[in-house]
Amino acid sequence: MSFPQAFVDPSSVAVVGATEDRAKWGYWLATGALAGADRRQVWLVNRRAAQVLGQSCRPTVDDLPQAPDLVALCVPSRDVLPVVRDALAKGCRAFLSITAGLGADEAELAALLRESDARLIGPNSLGLFNAATELRLAWGNFTPGRLAIVSQSGQLGSEIAGLGARAGLGVSRFYSVGNQLDVGAVDVLESLVSDEHTGTVALYLESFADGARIVTALGALRRAGKHALVLTTGASEGSRLLARSHTGSMTSALDVVDAACRAAGALRVATPRELVDAARVLDATAPPGGRRVAIISDSGGQGGIAADIAGDRGLRTPVFTEPLQARLRDLLSNAAAAVSNPVDLAGAGEADLQLYARVTELVAASGEVDSIVLSGYLGCYGEDSPSLKDAESAVIDRLGRRPRTDASHVPLIVHSMSAASPAVARLREHRVPVFDTIDAALGALGHVTRLGGQPRPAPLTVRTEAAVPAPGYWAARTFLTALGIAMPEARRVTDAAGFAAACASLRPPLVLKADWIAHKSEHQAVRTGLGPDTAAAVFREMYERLGPGEYVVEEQDTRPGVVELLIGARRDRDFGPTVTVGHGGVLAELWHDVCVELAPVDRRTAAGMLDRLRSRRLLDGWRGQPAVDLDALIDAVVAVSEAIAATTGLADIEVNPIRVGPEGALAVEALVIPRAEDVVAQAACEATGVNGHRETTEEQEASREHVH
Amino acid sequence: MSFPQAFVDPSSVAVVGATEDRAKWGYWLATGALAGADRRQVWLVNRRAAQVLGQSCRPTVDDLPQAPDLVALCVPSRDVLPVVRDALAKGCRAFLSITAGLGADEAELAALLRESDARLIGPNSLGLFNAATELRLAWGNFTPGRLAIVSQSGQLGSEIAGLGARAGLGVSRFYSVGNQLDVGAVDVLESLVSDEHTGTVALYLESFADGARIVTALGALRRAGKHALVLTTGASEGSRLLARSHTGSMTSALDVVDAACRAAGALRVATPRELVDAARVLDATAPPGGRRVAIISDSGGQGGIAADIAGDRGLRTPVFTEPLQARLRDLLSNAAAAVSNPVDLAGAGEADLQLYARVTELVAASGEVDSIVLSGYLGCYGEDSPSLKDAESAVIDRLGRRPRTDASHVPLIVHSMSAASPAVARLREHRVPVFDTIDAALGALGHVTRLGGQPRPAPLTVRTEAAVPAPGYWAARTFLTALGIAMPEARRVTDAAGFAAACASLRPPLVLKADWIAHKSEHQAVRTGLGPDTAAAVFREMYERLGPGEYVVEEQDTRPGVVELLIGARRDRDFGPTVTVGHGGVLAELWHDVCVELAPVDRRTAAGMLDRLRSRRLLDGWRGQPAVDLDALIDAVVAVSEAIAATTGLADIEVNPIRVGPEGALAVEALVIPRAEDVVAQAACEATGVNGHRETTEEQEASREHVH
Repeated sequence: MSFPQAFVDPSSVAVVGATEDRAKWGYWLATGALAGADRRQVWLVNRRAAQVLGQSCRPTVDDLPQAPDLVALCVPSRDVLPVVRDALAKGCRAFLSITAGLGADEAELAALLRESDARLIGPNSLGLFNAATELRLAWGNFTPGRLAIVSQSGQLGSEIAGLGARAGLGVSRFYSVGNQLDVGAVDVLESLVSDEHTGTVALYLESFADGARIVTALGALRRAGKHALVLTTGASEGSRLLARSHTGSMTSALDVVDAACRAAGALRVATPRELVDAARVLDATAPPGGRRVAIISDSGGQGGIAADIAGDRGLRTPVFTEPLQARLRDLLSNAAAAVSNPVDLAGAGEADLQLYARVTELVAASGEVDSIVLSGYLGCYGEDSPSLKDAESAVIDRLGRRPRTDASHVPLIVHSMSAASPAVARLREHRVPVFDTIDAALGALGHVTRLGGQPRPAPLTVRTEAAVPAPGYWAARTFLTALGIAMPEARRVTDAAGFAAACASLRPPLVLKADWIAHKSEHQAVRTGLGPDTAAAVFREMYERLGPGEYVVEEQDTRPGVVELLIGARRDRDFGPTVTVGHGGVLAELWHDVCVELAPVDRRTAAGMLDRLRSRRLLDGWRGQPAVDLDALIDAVVAVSEAIAATTGLADIEVNPIRVGPEGALAVEALVIPRAEDVVAQAACEATGVNGHRETTEEQEASREHVH
Repeated sequence: MSFPQAFVDPSSVAVVGATEDRAKWGYWLATGALAGADRRQVWLVNRRAAQVLGQSCRPTVDDLPQAPDLVALCVPSRDVLPVVRDALAKGCRAFLSITAGLGADEAELAALLRESDARLIGPNSLGLFNAATELRLAWGNFTPGRLAIVSQSGQLGSEIAGLGARAGLGVSRFYSVGNQLDVGAVDVLESLVSDEHTGTVALYLESFADGARIVTALGALRRAGKHALVLTTGASEGSRLLARSHTGSMTSALDVVDAACRAAGALRVATPRELVDAARVLDATAPPGGRRVAIISDSGGQGGIAADIAGDRGLRTPVFTEPLQARLRDLLSNAAAAVSNPVDLAGAGEADLQLYARVTELVAASGEVDSIVLSGYLGCYGEDSPSLKDAESAVIDRLGRRPRTDASHVPLIVHSMSAASPAVARLREHRVPVFDTIDAALGALGHVTRLGGQPRPAPLTVRTEAAVPAPGYWAARTFLTALGIAMPEARRVTDAAGFAAACASLRPPLVLKADWIAHKSEHQAVRTGLGPDTAAAVFREMYERLGPGEYVVEEQDTRPGVVELLIGARRDRDFGPTVTVGHGGVLAELWHDVCVELAPVDRRTAAGMLDRLRSRRLLDGWRGQPAVDLDALIDAVVAVSEAIAATTGLADIEVNPIRVGPEGALAVEALVIPRAEDVVAQAACEATGVNGHRETTEEQEASREHVH
């Protein structure tokens, strides 16, 4: 269902519950609607007043001369259903419900809307705003600009708008989607893809029931040249309690949100302030192509602090090459100046303010960095010394005139000790992002730099759906081996004679496992290091203890220089299939060194996952060991990711550890868990759209119903 | 040498280089000095002008009627020496040198000062300011207040003052110590201990050559009821390079600076903004007694974000007990409200603003949290709805009147969506810290909470100095065993016959080590797992490869459930003896899970070090294992820390790994490195003041000379 034009540029609006009481919503929506009265018909509806704000008023929607294109509801909660019924009868098909607290009436409202093919934003919306169409149905005022705000929490949306306004960043559209009874955030996102007035999208959501569709919409925004910044909660027990959701797995819900953002070319930020700071940079410049930043300051102290904070925010301050340093030395005759990065003008700026521009241009042209930060006194010279005012304006104009559209453009960010000097205002006019703390400048740059990539294209090859394996280790082995993942030579046995025969055909040391026990270590259902003299006794002991059943005897991997990792795959309730790789073995849970992505992943994404591990260095050869077989490891990650994506009957695949040496990767323990029956039944239709997270599935629709 | 009163409240001041040119320092210092003319004699000195700023001017200091108590130098660098000579001859003994770039003249200036027993701040100072004595010899204006700023970088000091002024935080004293040719930051710190006008001290330093004295001074400040916030650089290669080129000195390792701060009850922050935000909270309230924070909001979204950020900043949002939740439920009849922490008023605040105070009082009295953060719309009600203005003022007055002096006081911090409403101003008047972003509010609270403790008292018992052991593993064993650290049974052998006899007297498996090789694994100078059948061949192979010498054969520790840690001790160039404990074994370097403190440490501090390890959980019994013998581990940490502190001839002690099981800790590899001879000679006298970092030693004085 497409997004109704009535929520974008309605031909007529009725505000039901319009009033002159400034403490009430009906006042703000009525004044806001009237501000667009030269563009569209505006009706005010109030059961008791004949006039509101100098406009004549009708008691009900039915009394209006025709059906309004959009009906805004600011009435007591008990009146919502009657008013909607009345309006539907009149022919209205689009509603905005500021009113909240409908309780049991929500279900009836939903049914009414469905029957009539009508759409509603809310209940519990804090309104909507569209600068381009002069549509203002919200509390407060908005500064027009290029940031679209889509928020499940109206107040957080307002906070973002307020912080933006204070920093000179305006709003293109504002949609507070409230309880999302009908219209969801994802509907709004989809409608923004083609909005020429929107440059950056701010999204606040507490739950991602429409996860797969949201990823698709965010990816479409990115491909349309717009950036999306995502704010959510769930990093703490407190916020999870508050959101009444909890996942008790190795990867937190936020890890998966981050993975979804990476897949879509979007970025998660942690606070409204981080969001607005990043949006300010995006409003002025494209994201840098990489993490290398040059720091230019007129104070060694400030340059040093900036370099430290850059590192903390994921940026690098590479030492300049000798030729660049030599050219900078020529420029800065000052003996106290530093030229290696950070550059410290050490007072040279005061003598010749053009040096700020000359150094910036030289560094930008060098190709040695992807972005430049000026930190310190620029912006204060003219304020403190009137004689320097013109020179400061001149250098700011020169900095502001740098081209920002060519491919080689190196973005410039300024931290000025002055918050609001005329020079700072002039930087803003030139659309140079300027911040009053180095924390904000580098925080924003760090975030924006992570947006440099494009959305990840869906891998083309997805295996055809495999049968869900039977329970037990042997079946898991067979399943993984079919995926191309190497496992040790093994035999199935059920008695001592079979065990002896198996041992004779395998190379010791051997490992004995009870096939049917999932958590083998806890139940002493695995024994390693079996040699010819001990094997029989070990089998006897385990058989007597655990009883008859299928046992697996395996060759033990004793290769030297092996690193243990884990590969996992899980079907996330919101976002669908995911794959995880991390440091494995007995301390995996302690170090929690894992990386998760939406599945399936291609080889390049899998390699990127390994690069993000803190234990990455182990794979390159630790303490003089040879490097491990990365290709084999990457193959295994890709294979597991494709398996979870293609095999809709699977809930979970765990390979821990997978032992990777200089030659090959060997999975030595594995668990494959099917989905609970009822879930599988719901998801049957998913098999057609096999690349999981790119589609909305009925299952996800169903789970959305569960959540709300 | 005590801090001259001339730098605090001089009886007379001469500004040499006074001018009417606003772009010059001589203008700012002259106008600043004249502002204090009703309190002290002010003379302006200018070689060419008869009048400056309406005051008569003298050509030289010698022309003044008497020797000024303090001489401020704003003259070209080549004039500094002549002016100082002139002033010394006149009888002056205190100087402030704004002038920088003395080059080779610095050494001569230092000699002159020494000969005359005179003191100088600078060169390259950006001035000093003292609100209480109306002494202003600096660029720009300062808002009077209770923050003292001591900075090696004048511009960073100015940035701190500027950020503070914008947030309503004033300055008591400002000392830009510049190149610290004579007066160092530590001299200023010591002078602040007794300053009744200073509540919090901001310290920026790039090098800590006076490390031990700085720790003593910071500890004295803390004991005098003042908090110190420390800013430094050195987290990145960029800042380390810059500091070297800027001041010619090496930055200290940040983890050692942090240890020094902990020992002194001070706190390191990363940016001027973090410093000012924390100082604003300290200006209003004592640090909370613990990490538990209550979040109270009128928006679920804002409450959730706040809880997440609290966790990220080292705070906890514990779920309230059922009785407290029940009382909150009674208070908030609103069905949508949440009461578990975060508390979400969910619109109830709008209906009755007094609820903000009632909820705050209830939570504060519960004893369940150590601090409270209000986040959201408070501060905006009256601004948006004039009818709510009085009610908002009333609740703010009630919140502001909460007692803040009793022991049970729970600090309150406010994040308001409004930056500058009258309600926010009223909160400020009540000295309730209020921030316009949740990042700043919780960042500041997180920092201040870490200041809750007192400075660590020096441990009383320090072992008497031990002899520095000879090189080699056997001597290290003997040294550590004498400290009470258990090591495996071992024998020294030099040939095959001795080796065979040793093996017969020890319990296999055994370990063979070449005594004289420091990094044994790299040189294959250690072999483990020797049994009766393999030992002889292993010895023969190693002997043939490495040649004659002393070998050590040891019983191998094969206890189950053992955790490997490392204990290290090092003599830091700046701060003296330090001790480190961390995750040990082959992956120690990868995970870098270590904690360092100034040595010696007592048992309680040692236990705290273990608590801060990310791998702490391993010690409590990992995956069903029994807990390890913490007492034995703590004993070993304390013993090593005392040894480095007491044994001045030692540079380094490394015990890696020490294997800790349920019964006892066993050190199985160790290295003890003496200091280089020349350093030891310099440090001989240190033996008398054996508790290392509490004293200034001649060695540290010597190293300061080296650095400057």
